[in-house]
Amino acid sequence: MVSIDLNSDLGESYGAWRMGDDQAMLDIVSSANIACGFHAGDPATILTTLRQAKDAKVAIGAHISYPDRVGFGRRKMDLSYSELFSDSLYQISALSGLAHSVNVQVRYVKPHGALYNSIAQDLAQAQAVIDAITAFDSSLAMVVLAGSPLVELAKQQGIRVIQEVFADRAYQKDGQLVSRRIQGAVIADPDLICQRMISLINTSKIPTIDGGYTSVQADSICVHGDNPEAVAIASKLRDALKQVGINIQAFS
Amino acid sequence: MVSIDLNSDLGESYGAWRMGDDQAMLDIVSSANIACGFHAGDPATILTTLRQAKDAKVAIGAHISYPDRVGFGRRKMDLSYSELFSDSLYQISALSGLAHSVNVQVRYVKPHGALYNSIAQDLAQAQAVIDAITAFDSSLAMVVLAGSPLVELAKQQGIRVIQEVFADRAYQKDGQLVSRRIQGAVIADPDLICQRMISLINTSKIPTIDGGYTSVQADSICVHGDNPEAVAIASKLRDALKQVGINIQAFS
Amino acid sequence: MVSIDLNSDLGESYGAWRMGDDQAMLDIVSSANIACGFHAGDPATILTTLRQAKDAKVAIGAHISYPDRVGFGRRKMDLSYSELFSDSLYQISALSGLAHSVNVQVRYVKPHGALYNSIAQDLAQAQAVIDAITAFDSSLAMVVLAGSPLVELAKQQGIRVIQEVFADRAYQKDGQLVSRRIQGAVIADPDLICQRMISLINTSKIPTIDGGYTSVQADSICVHGDNPEAVAIASKLRDALKQVGINIQAFS
Amino acid sequence: MVSIDLNSDLGESYGAWRMGDDQAMLDIVSSANIACGFHAGDPATILTTLRQAKDAKVAIGAHISYPDRVGFGRRKMDLSYSELFSDSLYQISALSGLAHSVNVQVRYVKPHGALYNSIAQDLAQAQAVIDAITAFDSSLAMVVLAGSPLVELAKQQGIRVIQEVFADRAYQKDGQLVSRRIQGAVIADPDLICQRMISLINTSKIPTIDGGYTSVQADSICVHGDNPEAVAIASKLRDALKQVGINIQAFS
Repeated sequence: MVSIDLNSDLGESYGAWRMGDDQAMLDIVSSANIACGFHAGDPATILTTLRQAKDAKVAIGAHISYPDRVGFGRRKMDLSYSELFSDSLYQISALSGLAHSVNVQVRYVKPHGALYNSIAQDLAQAQAVIDAITAFDSSLAMVVLAGSPLVELAKQQGIRVIQEVFADRAYQKDGQLVSRRIQGAVIADPDLICQRMISLINTSKIPTIDGGYTSVQADSICVHGDNPEAVAIASKLRDALKQVGINIQAFS
Repeated sequence: MVSIDLNSDLGESYGAWRMGDDQAMLDIVSSANIACGFHAGDPATILTTLRQAKDAKVAIGAHISYPDRVGFGRRKMDLSYSELFSDSLYQISALSGLAHSVNVQVRYVKPHGALYNSIAQDLAQAQAVIDAITAFDSSLAMVVLAGSPLVELAKQQGIRVIQEVFADRAYQKDGQLVSRRIQGAVIADPDLICQRMISLINTSKIPTIDGGYTSVQADSICVHGDNPEAVAIASKLRDALKQVGINIQAFS
Repeated sequence: MVSIDLNSDLGESYGAWRMGDDQAMLDIVSSANIACGFHAGDPATILTTLRQAKDAKVAIGAHISYPDRVGFGRRKMDLSYSELFSDSLYQISALSGLAHSVNVQVRYVKPHGALYNSIAQDLAQAQAVIDAITAFDSSLAMVVLAGSPLVELAKQQGIRVIQEVFADRAYQKDGQLVSRRIQGAVIADPDLICQRMISLINTSKIPTIDGGYTSVQADSICVHGDNPEAVAIASKLRDALKQVGINIQAFS
Repeated sequence: MVSIDLNSDLGESYGAWRMGDDQAMLDIVSSANIACGFHAGDPATILTTLRQAKDAKVAIGAHISYPDRVGFGRRKMDLSYSELFSDSLYQISALSGLAHSVNVQVRYVKPHGALYNSIAQDLAQAQAVIDAITAFDSSLAMVVLAGSPLVELAKQQGIRVIQEVFADRAYQKDGQLVSRRIQGAVIADPDLICQRMISLINTSKIPTIDGGYTSVQADSICVHGDNPEAVAIASKLRDALKQVGINIQAFS
């Protein structure tokens, strides 16, 4: 039976501020990327999200970030190897201990925002994150941008790699995402999103913005929950996948 | 053979700012209270301190704090149970994971500054910290103010309690510390400090500020390293204890 | 013509996190308490709110707070005089400079959350805030809890005091607010809220929780905008006041 | 009479952490770049430094930074125009208000660390800082890297530019600083430093690392105070300049 993982960013409230509808998303996804406090998530929020994720039986990942709360981890920062290694390890550790207290286990690491984009290409920063994962627990998987140079780097060092695609993003013919600055980069039509993802899972190919096709390995699909429309799209995608017999489950 | 633990606050640098002479103190103490990032200590600093502590073969404790970096954790804060429980658990978890990465283990928790003073008396806040310790690892010890109400509360709940005294502080006849606002609260004479501590270890009694004696159980002595004079006093105390045959070692 | 000020807390978004419907509230109130960055509000958010407030022609106040973003300034902190004086001055200064850049002026200071409640009673902390106001611009008004000890302290020192009441809160016979921990402390019925406020403005008396009346001077009414129900109540109150001929305007 | 400005970074302590010997440097320099809270400096520290600078009769500048305290503002960050404009304005405003409370005035803006280096070349980020200066007070000067593209950009927009050189840094033949990663980038010999600066002030030329000379306009020399050796060098430079009849004074 064909299966795919659906992941989403959760636990991104902070103190008095709410973000996203975590409970709704936990009914949709198979994996929850939980903020670790550097871009979002205070300890009490994180703990609540971990309990909800446990109840929903979804896999838990550490959604680590640059230390930039006011920028929500979306701004590239020039951290040294030592800083990024230590910051990554601190975040994975904090989340793992909180998870341990509610009897669940962190299964993977997904870098967030600017860090995610940076390390897909910047292999010096990538190495710091890989080394942090290895130093903490080399059985942790790592969610990375499908087809990026990071895929090979991580694999060579024995990290289990989960290649990730984005449900609502257009692709170039080299298999990379179309930049958000270019028209057509984001796909809004829910039906098209569903159709593209089903086709991708079944064929490992996706239509490109210039009218062709490119090969992309999709181990996990990222869906969003930060507004009601996004939740509706994610829910629709889940239903569409199940309807054609695709099983939604975390990588095991 | 009589023995005592010497502990000190370490890893309290932050980013570009230095505090204390950690390396000097690691040659003196048997236990290192390592900052966890909430009052001091960034991840890279903490990791460095953990490596130094491992090399020095001293026991490692999580020096948890209120979330108040600019106030260095010295200002009482009215946290809710849920906030204090989660903040404590997050800090213990982060330090434990970093320690794990260098193959050492956190052995105890010592609340810092205003949190230390608060929970010695405020048993609602104390319960949040105790529950965090229990949730993480009930075999962790807890360093608490000798003779405070917290001692019994923690013991009743199965926490191993390390009663702590302060080398340079005067005591009241009820066994409590003389407030720093009262003249004579801090003892500056290194010889007197040594003499008082040796006597305390051997007799479980300490002279009080009003000329009498009080009983105090001393499992660990806190010494400071934040200025050269403090380091010299700590070093002198260590030598004085060894000279009279008192063994300096972490509780095991 | 009888008039009253309506004030609300605005600019409380932070980075990627939204809070409240500032634009809706600016159509309702005559005064905007704008966060200064310590409990909420990043510089870009603050600047946007200042521009909106200018366009809406509402008076602008500095909504200063303890330095506690994760706690949203709601947790009492034991700051020293020097810390609270400097923190208050820094926040008033930052907001004033941003306001100056869009050609508006800060007209008053309203302490937020735990600081507001603390200084209503704790006159040592109150003095630090008063001194900060005086050091910056002694013509700034100060919004304080109606009937609290702070009213006299501030007046004695030449500060213009705006006594504030809360539209949705019950009062004791001594003119103080009923604690939120007591049943009946918060009034939910919009009609009752309107009726109580109209009566208070016209008679300077308000019904108390024990069935009597107490005298309260109301220079400004605080209304909330952090959820759609709150916005609806504030809007209804505005309409009700205008309908009985009460003019809504900032103190001048 | 020939004159030059000497500037140094001050007010860089933070909470319990000390940095630099501000009092010693205030006897040496004519201009103090005072931290504004984003890379260093809490409000109480800043206020103390402002009072000391006033007593020492040195000019005061706003030492604005990226929002990165743990990185001490030394890490490049990709801020948007709106973020950098608002962050700059907030910092200038906060410092100006604190300065106003002690009856001194901010005279110039000097970006710090990574922001300083970025905007010397990245004219999009530079524009955000220039616009913040103009929005606050267009009579403020701006301290910029001598000979950098920013010099012209700022001048064209009516900003008074203070071109800055570094006493202890080697120069390339294009008038730019030799990267710190290259051997010989930092000059350690105090006598050589003095001789180079005297020659530069008198001739507007400085020897380059490859054995030639380059033209550099030096309006201000940056000296450091973060360790005793640096203070000694700065003091020696001051004495050497005065001995050859060069007047040390802030630009007026």
